[in-house]
Amino acid sequence: MLLAKVRGTVVSTCKEPSLNGVKFLLVQLLNDMGELLPDYEVAADVVGAGVGEWVLITRGSGARQHEGYVDRPVDTAVVAIVDTVSLDSGALYNKREDWS
Amino acid sequence: MLLAKVRGTVVSTCKEPSLNGVKFLLVQLLNDMGELLPDYEVAADVVGAGVGEWVLITRGSGARQHEGYVDRPVDTAVVAIVDTVSLDSGALYNKREDWS
Amino acid sequence: MLLAKVRGTVVSTCKEPSLNGVKFLLVQLLNDMGELLPDYEVAADVVGAGVGEWVLITRGSGARQHEGYVDRPVDTAVVAIVDTVSLDSGALYNKREDWS
Amino acid sequence: MLLAKVRGTVVSTCKEPSLNGVKFLLVQLLNDMGELLPDYEVAADVVGAGVGEWVLITRGSGARQHEGYVDRPVDTAVVAIVDTVSLDSGALYNKREDWS
Amino acid sequence: MLLAKVRGTVVSTCKEPSLNGVKFLLVQLLNDMGELLPDYEVAADVVGAGVGEWVLITRGSGARQHEGYVDRPVDTAVVAIVDTVSLDSGALYNKREDWS
Repeated sequence: MLLAKVRGTVVSTCKEPSLNGVKFLLVQLLNDMGELLPDYEVAADVVGAGVGEWVLITRGSGARQHEGYVDRPVDTAVVAIVDTVSLDSGALYNKREDWS
Repeated sequence: MLLAKVRGTVVSTCKEPSLNGVKFLLVQLLNDMGELLPDYEVAADVVGAGVGEWVLITRGSGARQHEGYVDRPVDTAVVAIVDTVSLDSGALYNKREDWS
Repeated sequence: MLLAKVRGTVVSTCKEPSLNGVKFLLVQLLNDMGELLPDYEVAADVVGAGVGEWVLITRGSGARQHEGYVDRPVDTAVVAIVDTVSLDSGALYNKREDWS
Repeated sequence: MLLAKVRGTVVSTCKEPSLNGVKFLLVQLLNDMGELLPDYEVAADVVGAGVGEWVLITRGSGARQHEGYVDRPVDTAVVAIVDTVSLDSGALYNKREDWS
Repeated sequence: MLLAKVRGTVVSTCKEPSLNGVKFLLVQLLNDMGELLPDYEVAADVVGAGVGEWVLITRGSGARQHEGYVDRPVDTAVVAIVDTVSLDSGALYNKREDWS
């Protein structure tokens, strides 16, 4: 999985039928310093994440291991909202103290 | 999934038999500013996208999660035509206002 | 899928048993200008492609969606010989006019 | 698989239900000289690895080949704690002599 | 598949149970000139390759298409020992003449 920050949403009317009801979030990847990378993904949201939150994304067939998703053409999903990231002996991120 | 722009088509007569009837679009990836990246994919079109449109592409086994595609040797599919992309508090793309 | 050009062949006597009879082509990836990239793949040939031809390659589990390949340890296959590539309003490649 | 070093942990309360009980380790990839690369992964731990240890990570559907993981949305797992890495005629890493 | 050269071995005592008996080779990727790239993989050996040999590696779910491997958490396997690589009209590599 990778750390990412929710940046926005993507809306589509004309899509593969099984994608109806799937919410697409635009998430931008974070490096191990918590800084935004140029890489992004459009991910199916299965946890109700909001803009600005740090999340974990799963890519590939793992993104379809969620009830009702096994036959949907998605390759990336937001599977967790991050509370804390600890790195070595310190804290890289704590949602309660996030002011960015 | 990734954002991409439809740039053209690829035609092949001699191909794996199950690919008959599959339309191949050449799509170029977009960065999070909506600019064309050097990377492209040749994707199976399952939504009827046209040249110039912004689309979502799914890669890997997810590209075969469409009726009749499960046994076809494809690894990328155009699964949605994008209407709008919202980033932070603004709009990155709106199909109705697209003049590019 | 990606566009590639057939550059050569790879021969192996000592291999996983189910690979007997599989022809391995060395294919070099092409960018969206039709120029050779430094990246290559060794691909199972299921369409009878020859050196110098432009082909489409499928990677991942999609490369095994061909009769008799589902249990073979391959991750890339040549699945189509390209006739034409159209980009925007022009032609990037036409097999009949190929002189490279 | 790739060599990586365990750097920390990621904690999430709000996550896809099947991820309950999965421990997420932040692991940083190592190059073939044993140096830390900028790339990292958040991996499900199935072997009880600790911060500072060298591990092997498996990505993609292989990360779910562990009892109870087949339906969980994970794409990376720590599958082994490394004892030694031998390169050509020398030793690149020996856990007993690790002082880093 | 990709061309790689066997550089060494990785040993682990504490690992996912189904990995018992799997031999891990450290293989370094080769470019299309036969030169070592900085990228490497730790691959399950299913053909008995030795240090210094050129091999083909398969990645992803294809690496588990070998008897007894389908449920093991591996994502890369050495599936063939290379005899010859022919590029355009010449030979890039011939195992019998290899003196590197």
